[in-house]
Amino acid sequence: MKNVAVMGYGTIGSGVVEILERNKETIARKVGDTVSVKYVLDLREFPGTTVEDKIVHDFSIIVKDPEVTMVIETMGGLKPAYPFVKACLEAGKHVATSNKALVAAYGTELLKIAKEHNVNFLFEASVGGGIPVIRPLYTCLAGEEIEEITGILNGTTNYILTKMEKAGETFETALREAQDLGYAERNPEADVEGHDTCRKIAILTAMASGHEVNFEHIYTEGITKITDVDFAYAESLGTSIKLLGSSRMEKGAAHAFVAPVMIGRDHPLYSVSDVYNGILVKGNMLGTSMFYGSGAGKLPTASAVIADIIEALKNEDQHVDFGWDDQGLAISSMESMSFRYFVRIKGIAAKRMKEVEEVFGKVEGIELDHMDEFAFLTEVMTEEEYDRKAKELSGIRQRIRAEF
Amino acid sequence: MKNVAVMGYGTIGSGVVEILERNKETIARKVGDTVSVKYVLDLREFPGTTVEDKIVHDFSIIVKDPEVTMVIETMGGLKPAYPFVKACLEAGKHVATSNKALVAAYGTELLKIAKEHNVNFLFEASVGGGIPVIRPLYTCLAGEEIEEITGILNGTTNYILTKMEKAGETFETALREAQDLGYAERNPEADVEGHDTCRKIAILTAMASGHEVNFEHIYTEGITKITDVDFAYAESLGTSIKLLGSSRMEKGAAHAFVAPVMIGRDHPLYSVSDVYNGILVKGNMLGTSMFYGSGAGKLPTASAVIADIIEALKNEDQHVDFGWDDQGLAISSMESMSFRYFVRIKGIAAKRMKEVEEVFGKVEGIELDHMDEFAFLTEVMTEEEYDRKAKELSGIRQRIRAEF
Repeated sequence: MKNVAVMGYGTIGSGVVEILERNKETIARKVGDTVSVKYVLDLREFPGTTVEDKIVHDFSIIVKDPEVTMVIETMGGLKPAYPFVKACLEAGKHVATSNKALVAAYGTELLKIAKEHNVNFLFEASVGGGIPVIRPLYTCLAGEEIEEITGILNGTTNYILTKMEKAGETFETALREAQDLGYAERNPEADVEGHDTCRKIAILTAMASGHEVNFEHIYTEGITKITDVDFAYAESLGTSIKLLGSSRMEKGAAHAFVAPVMIGRDHPLYSVSDVYNGILVKGNMLGTSMFYGSGAGKLPTASAVIADIIEALKNEDQHVDFGWDDQGLAISSMESMSFRYFVRIKGIAAKRMKEVEEVFGKVEGIELDHMDEFAFLTEVMTEEEYDRKAKELSGIRQRIRAEF
Repeated sequence: MKNVAVMGYGTIGSGVVEILERNKETIARKVGDTVSVKYVLDLREFPGTTVEDKIVHDFSIIVKDPEVTMVIETMGGLKPAYPFVKACLEAGKHVATSNKALVAAYGTELLKIAKEHNVNFLFEASVGGGIPVIRPLYTCLAGEEIEEITGILNGTTNYILTKMEKAGETFETALREAQDLGYAERNPEADVEGHDTCRKIAILTAMASGHEVNFEHIYTEGITKITDVDFAYAESLGTSIKLLGSSRMEKGAAHAFVAPVMIGRDHPLYSVSDVYNGILVKGNMLGTSMFYGSGAGKLPTASAVIADIIEALKNEDQHVDFGWDDQGLAISSMESMSFRYFVRIKGIAAKRMKEVEEVFGKVEGIELDHMDEFAFLTEVMTEEEYDRKAKELSGIRQRIRAEF
């Protein structure tokens, strides 16, 4: 029997305990032994539940118990998750976590400690919820040089954008609906400002390049400025607007960003709607692959943790060598990246188009009925070039990067 | 240095040699050692190429060379692939293959021999070309009870159906075009009659259930009877017609079939077009995931073989325990499966609808202009019930299973 401890009995933690029970036989067959939850660390009590007699409030009980060979961290946040996980690894226990903040901030150090202590530090559930992506990157695509990873990595914002697109809702209404359904937090900043997506693309970029990525170096723009008017134009163009985390690898550097991007119908991520996530991976030999599924939710995310538990316990005496080293990967500045731009501008196209084309050269104009504005799509140019040119025009109301 | 031998220097085999060379450093980093091709077994010579001095015509050179620790089988077919692979495993060499016919016919035996000799028999490339699916099933979804696998598993037929749908072509024209582009063989039977898809869904079903699947027990219907008229109706319904291989797992049995199925826009496989493949996996905890990418092609398929090479060589002294046992999984008869049915029938709806509804109960009628026929969609019923009822109506021209 293998004894594990679960730290944090919230949504994901209770999901892990539930799957360990419900899929007990399948899991035992894969591990080669039964897996039993010995402790659940939480500040609360859970009287009348199956974990009632497993609850402990003192972390030292877990870290000092030699019978516990693996710890599952589903507390979230950095304190006390970081010191607890570090202590578990140093005590020679395997750790699986669903905590993207922890992995993005301390992944390099924790991977190193795991290696030194010949244990495993696994984090499939930190990106893409139940979608297998971390493990495919280091197993299935192990022989590839990864050229690009682009994903819809946050279910909350994808739900909001889908509502705005399909039901013509404003950002505020769609956000309130997402909050009422429990998809968005009361304080939605981490999702809608793109911080969550930023940490996830940082982890994926580090996995793909093999080098540490400082998520603070990644340009991050959220969806709070996207309006129902933008979606009206998008509809007339047959396009959609999605919050993308994207990373293009070059030798020793990456272009990485998080921003809403207007994409066309033939983009593999176009049809990823609602709370679903999709992650597109381009390898130099493989071409484009896409992974699609539930990016969040109790059981899908817990299922990804379970896969880590099985891998760690199958390789109990062996360090699974994956992840990244502490050589920092250079993240190129946003100014040097190139896009097309969708721009909305005050006035009437018939009167102002000449002025626009004097600045931007040939553009594609788009007009909707009954508006005191029009829009245009530029050719591809660098962010630096766009910013410089945009200053020459008055009345610009919106610019959204476009790739189609 | 690890020495490998490649058996069969056709499309996939030469792709494997090419990637081993082009991504040499990445692969060496993952394996922890350089990988070198010592022999290439082929009946032909390849003067002036990089493998010129590695070509051997005698299999015994490979099997007897203790320096060769891994063999890659990319010959296809069963003879001599089967005896060669068997001999390699018995000689304690790891084997990776892209050969779905071999895996579907002899997988059970070869997995058993691999285990007995503590080596690995891996076949990621046998299903879905470059799309990672075999490995995710035994790693990422290891803790799941798989409830369903449904896929577009054959690029040739998907290309043909896409051409019929998008360009209004007949089956014959689309097939000829696929042949001209090299997507379809001169003798296209294995693809268009569904035999290729059948072997692939058999392998996936065995992986998901852990038990042997006899592909000959799987009902298999190809696309040769699908016409441009069917697609005209599909368009008016907002649906598509795709060749699906599908398997629904129950305790100790599976409902499995290969057939063209009419699916709606909200089906995750709806937008998988051209030569792309898509594989949808439903787990009891995870919900629905989808894997999408190039289902065929030299480098994508070879890339999947490379992932197997890396896994085998990283675990050189260890048997990776996956696959299935020799307990045959019962495949339920097609008669017991349930679908809706799209049916085309001679005559005029106004005159014959009453007769149709007397037999089938409430149906949804569909009429196109200028036709001497109409169509209808039944409610869900078993195949047995449909067949019985259909006999009561004269002039049925087509029936396609529908799921939407």
